[in-house]
Amino acid sequence: MQTMPKSRDLTAVVRPSTIAVIGASRDPAKVGHAIFHNILTGGFQGAVHPVNPTARAISGVRAYRSVLEVPDPVDLAVVITPAALVPGVLDECGQAGVRGVIVISGGFREVGEEGRKREDLVRERIARWGFALIGPNCLGVINTAPDVRLNATFAAQIPAAGNIGFLSQSGALTAAALDYARTKRIGFSKVFNLGNKADVTELELLDVLAADPDTHVILLYVEELSEGRRFIETAREISEQSPPKPVLVLKAGRTADGARAVSSHTGSLAGSDQVYEAIFAQAGVLRVESIEELFDYAGAFSRQPLPKGRRVAIVTNAGGPGILATDACIRQGLELSKLSTATLGALRGVVPGEAHVGNPLDIIGDADDRRYDAALEAVLADPSVDAGVVLVTRQATIDVEAAADAVIRRARASGKPVLASFVGALAVESGVARLEEAGIPHYPFPEAIARTLAAMARYVSWIERPRTGYHTFDDVDLPRARKIIAGAEPGFLSESAALGLLESYRLPLLPWAVATTASEAAERALAIGLPVALKILSPQIIHKVDVGGVRLHLGTAAEVAAAYEAMMVSIRKHHPDAALDGVLVQAMARKGHEVILGISHDAQFGPVLMFGLGGIYVEVLKDVTFRLAPVRELGARRMVEETRTAAILQGVRGEPPSDLEAIVECLLRLSQLAVDCPEVAELDINPLFVYAAGQGAAVADARVRIAPPPG
Amino acid sequence: MQTMPKSRDLTAVVRPSTIAVIGASRDPAKVGHAIFHNILTGGFQGAVHPVNPTARAISGVRAYRSVLEVPDPVDLAVVITPAALVPGVLDECGQAGVRGVIVISGGFREVGEEGRKREDLVRERIARWGFALIGPNCLGVINTAPDVRLNATFAAQIPAAGNIGFLSQSGALTAAALDYARTKRIGFSKVFNLGNKADVTELELLDVLAADPDTHVILLYVEELSEGRRFIETAREISEQSPPKPVLVLKAGRTADGARAVSSHTGSLAGSDQVYEAIFAQAGVLRVESIEELFDYAGAFSRQPLPKGRRVAIVTNAGGPGILATDACIRQGLELSKLSTATLGALRGVVPGEAHVGNPLDIIGDADDRRYDAALEAVLADPSVDAGVVLVTRQATIDVEAAADAVIRRARASGKPVLASFVGALAVESGVARLEEAGIPHYPFPEAIARTLAAMARYVSWIERPRTGYHTFDDVDLPRARKIIAGAEPGFLSESAALGLLESYRLPLLPWAVATTASEAAERALAIGLPVALKILSPQIIHKVDVGGVRLHLGTAAEVAAAYEAMMVSIRKHHPDAALDGVLVQAMARKGHEVILGISHDAQFGPVLMFGLGGIYVEVLKDVTFRLAPVRELGARRMVEETRTAAILQGVRGEPPSDLEAIVECLLRLSQLAVDCPEVAELDINPLFVYAAGQGAAVADARVRIAPPPG
Repeated sequence: MQTMPKSRDLTAVVRPSTIAVIGASRDPAKVGHAIFHNILTGGFQGAVHPVNPTARAISGVRAYRSVLEVPDPVDLAVVITPAALVPGVLDECGQAGVRGVIVISGGFREVGEEGRKREDLVRERIARWGFALIGPNCLGVINTAPDVRLNATFAAQIPAAGNIGFLSQSGALTAAALDYARTKRIGFSKVFNLGNKADVTELELLDVLAADPDTHVILLYVEELSEGRRFIETAREISEQSPPKPVLVLKAGRTADGARAVSSHTGSLAGSDQVYEAIFAQAGVLRVESIEELFDYAGAFSRQPLPKGRRVAIVTNAGGPGILATDACIRQGLELSKLSTATLGALRGVVPGEAHVGNPLDIIGDADDRRYDAALEAVLADPSVDAGVVLVTRQATIDVEAAADAVIRRARASGKPVLASFVGALAVESGVARLEEAGIPHYPFPEAIARTLAAMARYVSWIERPRTGYHTFDDVDLPRARKIIAGAEPGFLSESAALGLLESYRLPLLPWAVATTASEAAERALAIGLPVALKILSPQIIHKVDVGGVRLHLGTAAEVAAAYEAMMVSIRKHHPDAALDGVLVQAMARKGHEVILGISHDAQFGPVLMFGLGGIYVEVLKDVTFRLAPVRELGARRMVEETRTAAILQGVRGEPPSDLEAIVECLLRLSQLAVDCPEVAELDINPLFVYAAGQGAAVADARVRIAPPPG
Repeated sequence: MQTMPKSRDLTAVVRPSTIAVIGASRDPAKVGHAIFHNILTGGFQGAVHPVNPTARAISGVRAYRSVLEVPDPVDLAVVITPAALVPGVLDECGQAGVRGVIVISGGFREVGEEGRKREDLVRERIARWGFALIGPNCLGVINTAPDVRLNATFAAQIPAAGNIGFLSQSGALTAAALDYARTKRIGFSKVFNLGNKADVTELELLDVLAADPDTHVILLYVEELSEGRRFIETAREISEQSPPKPVLVLKAGRTADGARAVSSHTGSLAGSDQVYEAIFAQAGVLRVESIEELFDYAGAFSRQPLPKGRRVAIVTNAGGPGILATDACIRQGLELSKLSTATLGALRGVVPGEAHVGNPLDIIGDADDRRYDAALEAVLADPSVDAGVVLVTRQATIDVEAAADAVIRRARASGKPVLASFVGALAVESGVARLEEAGIPHYPFPEAIARTLAAMARYVSWIERPRTGYHTFDDVDLPRARKIIAGAEPGFLSESAALGLLESYRLPLLPWAVATTASEAAERALAIGLPVALKILSPQIIHKVDVGGVRLHLGTAAEVAAAYEAMMVSIRKHHPDAALDGVLVQAMARKGHEVILGISHDAQFGPVLMFGLGGIYVEVLKDVTFRLAPVRELGARRMVEETRTAAILQGVRGEPPSDLEAIVECLLRLSQLAVDCPEVAELDINPLFVYAAGQGAAVADARVRIAPPPG
């Protein structure tokens, strides 16, 4: 795995003082004009120079034929020349001592083979000159900090300054999102568009945003991640900062068809979505499903305090929307606060006699802003309330602007997150505008509020989770494991080698031994403890049962010896030429709940751990979960808990709970194995029998495939 | 069950020619003023008279002290007097020969005990005078038909005329929804607000909308339904009209907390949500989750043709949104069309050389409206395309209004549904306005398009479903069933009576008999076929196994006799005083897949059928499905198919498929039983063993509870 030095200096890209726009144009219809114009008129606090082979000046600013002619030292070059000219331009940038480059031009990897070659030339220049390069094929960079004010994009308007850092892989989507955010009065600190990621990736820019005091929330739109493990570490560090910075991710290409579209779009190889799901879970980032959700969440995370928990109070002046909000909150896993007797008493003085006092609190149709004010004051003061939801429908008696002011006042005084929906549209516009200007997130309907508050509550439970480390078991016999792997051909390990490998990591195997005669088999069986099973060991015999190569429930030494002899006769008959490595003598497994553990190898991200419940239902439900290895202790526990069928292991129908600790330990041992032995391309324990709590687990069957380690 | 005559004449309410507004007011701050004013100035084509005890005229129109003084015959009275005066006003209406009444006034059932009494007085007047009454506690009625133009509500503006009928139980929500719809340029034919439903319910108004040629789509917001079975029949008829009218339902109170909020809101008792889910499935209505979805769907259903299937083509000028749209379509169960070679060839002439030609079709960033036009022409002509999705991001080269015109032109020419998202907000406004005016539904982001198209495709598959009837099995022994029930005390039936009841409906029982001596048991066992099980029959012995009252796998007549004797000894020891009804001799069931069938009784809607897979996983997953009885043949089949674990019955791991026909027949027989025998309050077949296709099923255990029939 190739890793970049983590703290490369990206100042030239993020806060340049002198910029050359190479390919700047006098023609207002051209991108080369738009970019230069946007930097020049966007309030940039440094100096910007146009570079154009023929123009004398652009927008009144003296132009140069080459970056080499610019008299001042240039920090940042923004390149908009035709793709074929880019490698030459980059050489000039290198010679001019430029430290940062943004290549806006398209025509590279995204257009096929020829473009791919051109991008290789770009990579060569990056290696040669050592500058940091964003793009090619990107929208550019925006920094709204007052001492920078850089809009090096062709988006028409610099967005409002705010505390959101936005990192995106799609230029069109970035432009559209900025436009949309403007209608929601959402402001940005920095906007980075990644393009083809020939050099700078989301990881370095995440580091920039992590360190940026102006950025409080990070939004990420990605089609693929460059490095899964580093992404996990980087994102976790961001969430462990104080105060933590939430990272919200929209990952496109979730479905197989979507991923195909990604491939033809940016030419990147998208990993399987389940692996991405694992990465996001391990990284503690919040995955969203749509652009709408991204900004719904961003609007609240960036402007409201985090809730302490998931208990919500709803204040409304109409029953219907109150019920819809309640439904939506419950469905999203929130709870309705049980208001205290004191709060209920206070509320009885606020609402008319006929109104029912409770949660949701319907302060009824004739409520005015003073009733909202008093109701919110009482409700938000209640310690059982972690967050407030305010619904206002347009009624004859209400002044929506005054109602907005009451919401703003009470939200600020409470220190708790308050989200609002003024239901309707034209009739509530002025109130909505007032809310949004004051930083109270507004949603046209209550369902989006519930989703957003639930995301905030999930995030809080993530940042407050117990912190666990990577467990390293020192009872592992690594030399033995390495020896088994070194001695193996690529392909499936023999059964005894596979058991040996698992045994060296102290996975809970049933007692086993290899025997090569009937009397040895009987002896081994007595040592192991009866009853036992016998299985033929031969690389040539795959379907053992069909040729009499498996005998189960052998209860006495004599039965074992007889079974051995009978097995040999049967094998010789069916496979006269098979090489026999003897017979596996193994204790019979007591039945328990069946679970599946495994290691697989993702082409992009390396070893991946798998957990799922076994049996026929799970095969249909595909209820399995993944994590990149290594996994922390809590991560292993979460793998077990997050499957839909996990409740079975907690004990149903009066059964005792299963030994979850034993499963967690097995997962952690497999995690260590996966990291130590990258040659293990595939490992399946199917099933692991899990017994009642304290009684452990037993590997009933295992399969290991070895491949040359990648890279 | 009290049923209204189905075709009561509601003309007086829906298209009155003379209206009296009782409680009309001169004070512009009062609802009594707003309503009169809205009717008067809303373009009403008939005559409206204010009724007020003191005013001479209101808004320039001669007022009367009582409806009895109005010189013309009054069709419709709109009542806004204080609640206490309403019963008296209704008597006057009755004397004046009024045929329709809308009671806007609140202060009835929704405010508690006193209001409930007042509502009872209202009901008395309805019964006495025989008029049709909407409300009380409602927003009123709107009819935009040019020959009516009635806005008998206090909503400020009459909505645009259109083809959507909107029937709602919440006044505030109706007002907000009308306001929201205006921003989306969505028009209405009729708007009815139900209020407390003291007389007219959603059923009668559904009939009105069904018969209304101006209404093409029906939207329903309900907190509870009055009559489940009639709702099913009414909604099905609407969907069987030609052309069919889609019915979209938003049901609030989905969660238990939400339902509690409903109860305190309108005072109605909400049925369990799973029963509502069943009703909506049987009725063929589309259930939505939010107000946003309701109008997202309505915008498309009301203005676009239905798709022939679920195959979608996506045309975009930017990769990112194209991928998000693809993801969303796949997630919603749509498919991406495989464009024909001819279409792909045509497209190669449309898009620049470097663009990839496929679906999603990215016509890339420099596309103009002509490229959209040509691409849409080719794509929509492809027979593999059932619906088009057009995404436009704001780019330098595109004129969004011209692009909108291209979309409108090509959508109309194709006769296929086309939905658009012009991604962004401010920058695309003018294009969006043009689309919406032309009836192309626009969504800010592609996810809502996918959801909407999926709903349209689901609706199409519903209207094109094979039509099946109610199957009546004539081999049922109804007299025997009635006799068993007549002879039973309320409570659980004895095991033999329960088996007898199931046997009279020819459910697939294992051979069984009752024996009262050891030799009789042996004899019966031989007749049934060995092996058998014995179970003690006694109303006093519940936990049979604990007292030795169950013996399984008895393989010979001698074993049966011995087991009988042993059982009697054991029972006498544990329960010396128990009354014994003998012993049940039953064939041992061969194991199969375990499923659960049942009947339960919903307090509001009557008998409900249940189906689910048995076993430990399903207990955790709660993967069961319901239908109101009676169920049609296709409905029974759908019950089996729609469980998440149904795939297990289709055969996994190389197993043969199970006998689905046998399950369907059992469900249909239970359905008949549920309707014939309303005394069956609860019936559980758990498990039914299902064998391989053609091999049937067997009831392994059953339990029946009898209660006096409701009503």
